[in-house]
Amino acid sequence: MRAIVLNDHVEVRDDRPAPNPSDGEVLVRVLRAGVCETDLQLIKGYMGFRGVLGHEFVGVAESGPMAGRRVVGEINCACWNCETCRKGLNTHCPNRTVLGILNHDGAFADHIAVPQRNLHLVPDSLSDDVAVFTEPVAAAFQIPAQVTVRPEDRVIVLGDGRLGNLCAQVLARLSKRVLVVGKHEEKLALLLSMGIDAARLSDPIDERSADIVVDCTGSETGLPTALKLVRPRGTIVLKTTVAGMQSMAWAPFVIDEVTLVGSRCGPFDLALAALEKGLVQVSPLISDHFPLSRGIDALARAQTKPVLKVLLDVS
Amino acid sequence: MRAIVLNDHVEVRDDRPAPNPSDGEVLVRVLRAGVCETDLQLIKGYMGFRGVLGHEFVGVAESGPMAGRRVVGEINCACWNCETCRKGLNTHCPNRTVLGILNHDGAFADHIAVPQRNLHLVPDSLSDDVAVFTEPVAAAFQIPAQVTVRPEDRVIVLGDGRLGNLCAQVLARLSKRVLVVGKHEEKLALLLSMGIDAARLSDPIDERSADIVVDCTGSETGLPTALKLVRPRGTIVLKTTVAGMQSMAWAPFVIDEVTLVGSRCGPFDLALAALEKGLVQVSPLISDHFPLSRGIDALARAQTKPVLKVLLDVS
Repeated sequence: MRAIVLNDHVEVRDDRPAPNPSDGEVLVRVLRAGVCETDLQLIKGYMGFRGVLGHEFVGVAESGPMAGRRVVGEINCACWNCETCRKGLNTHCPNRTVLGILNHDGAFADHIAVPQRNLHLVPDSLSDDVAVFTEPVAAAFQIPAQVTVRPEDRVIVLGDGRLGNLCAQVLARLSKRVLVVGKHEEKLALLLSMGIDAARLSDPIDERSADIVVDCTGSETGLPTALKLVRPRGTIVLKTTVAGMQSMAWAPFVIDEVTLVGSRCGPFDLALAALEKGLVQVSPLISDHFPLSRGIDALARAQTKPVLKVLLDVS
Repeated sequence: MRAIVLNDHVEVRDDRPAPNPSDGEVLVRVLRAGVCETDLQLIKGYMGFRGVLGHEFVGVAESGPMAGRRVVGEINCACWNCETCRKGLNTHCPNRTVLGILNHDGAFADHIAVPQRNLHLVPDSLSDDVAVFTEPVAAAFQIPAQVTVRPEDRVIVLGDGRLGNLCAQVLARLSKRVLVVGKHEEKLALLLSMGIDAARLSDPIDERSADIVVDCTGSETGLPTALKLVRPRGTIVLKTTVAGMQSMAWAPFVIDEVTLVGSRCGPFDLALAALEKGLVQVSPLISDHFPLSRGIDALARAQTKPVLKVLLDVS
């Protein structure tokens, strides 16, 4: 089958063997896939991943109880047997694989093997272009799953990119005081057009004023900036993963009694419901479509600054 | 008056003018004071403090409604007028001074000026040697004020020093599964004698096993060690302040969805009640007494490894 494969370098192959689903797994024919910041980090060496890239997708199940239906899939494939899984922390299973990220071939391919229990049916009313956003929208919904957001809370989202935009949309449903701080005129304009307050990082922003700061910058400068903006006893939600070591002063966490919450994958059911109800808009984020055969161009395009989401049309 | 003064260097002076209490402040005649890790950090340049050191003390109020009575004092002197204070975050008042730490002369002196509203009466049953521990015991009680500790939670306290010992004693009242991890045979033996489980850092300790890890190491190695020991979605309480920049990988906070809670000063009322009821033992922590005139020796002694708490007998 065709696939975008990461080894020493990234390449589009047309001779990749189709995945062989193991017990409990279903073969999914991929329709559409999305390029994520994590894919770009993996190419730079993050996690040391080797294999087929891609973890945001919508496809058609080719076996199992959902055969013939459109599905999206949670990315963490747990063992469901260990102590961590038994505690309900299956997304943190130490034995897990992760689609397109850790020991499991991903969705930038004609087919992907996904555990049946990871799959969710896609409502008919959702187009492929919308359904492919389920995974990143779920990641945004993980924030209120971990942190109480009150209507009066001042929330600052750092980063006007793909994830920052989606997090801001979700948080704007909970607080009337959400501000996105970014660097890109067009991306900030898009947020303003969605009714979300947006400012440039160089604009004057009150330091130590935010109840909650969400770091979606994808940059090692995000966390130190968040620490300047959060109020004493406020909360920083860290969405950004950066490879390697970062240097900063930790003492302010103690002096200001700041809470830092690491946040990763989220609830697919809430994401699908929000997409179905139109509570989160994703179509304006689509910058480009590429066929799978032009995967290298798609990855290159996703790294350029004015771009939000690049989609791969697989079939 | 006599005082231990930090300028370019630390020295004991006998010509320091007595503090002149401002409106709302009370002059307190110091009886006993304790040397804290923060004092040692200040001498190394942390916070850039200049003035009389010392923030752990018991004394006798010489004016105000508590005149003639023994008192201890909270260290943050708030303005009580700003937005932060009005929100109840007075210990984080941006206009605050802090006894012996920030723009306010401290307690290693014959007298200290303390806001009346910071003072708490000391029960007659508490000796000066016990009452002087109120401030660090309160800091330990700040942990359950910020983080829910359940009886079944596995709690690891990193650091067997003054603060680690007190935090472990407080946490052992809430969880049956507290383990202190340290480096010093005598300090670990003391904890074991108090009925608290203790291990050497070099002992085999399950990684990713603790629901809560409290960093009381006073070292920049503490937080990376805590991150290894905490379970996915677990909580690290950071008590340690280290001057300057620290380097570590932040990605595990996101991948494992770990929460970090900075924790500083705590409730004096709970600390005094616990000391009065004997729920926290402090006398075994006293390694040495020095007269104020030998303050330099006291500070030097506090930096030696086998020592826990060094007290200054002021009057």
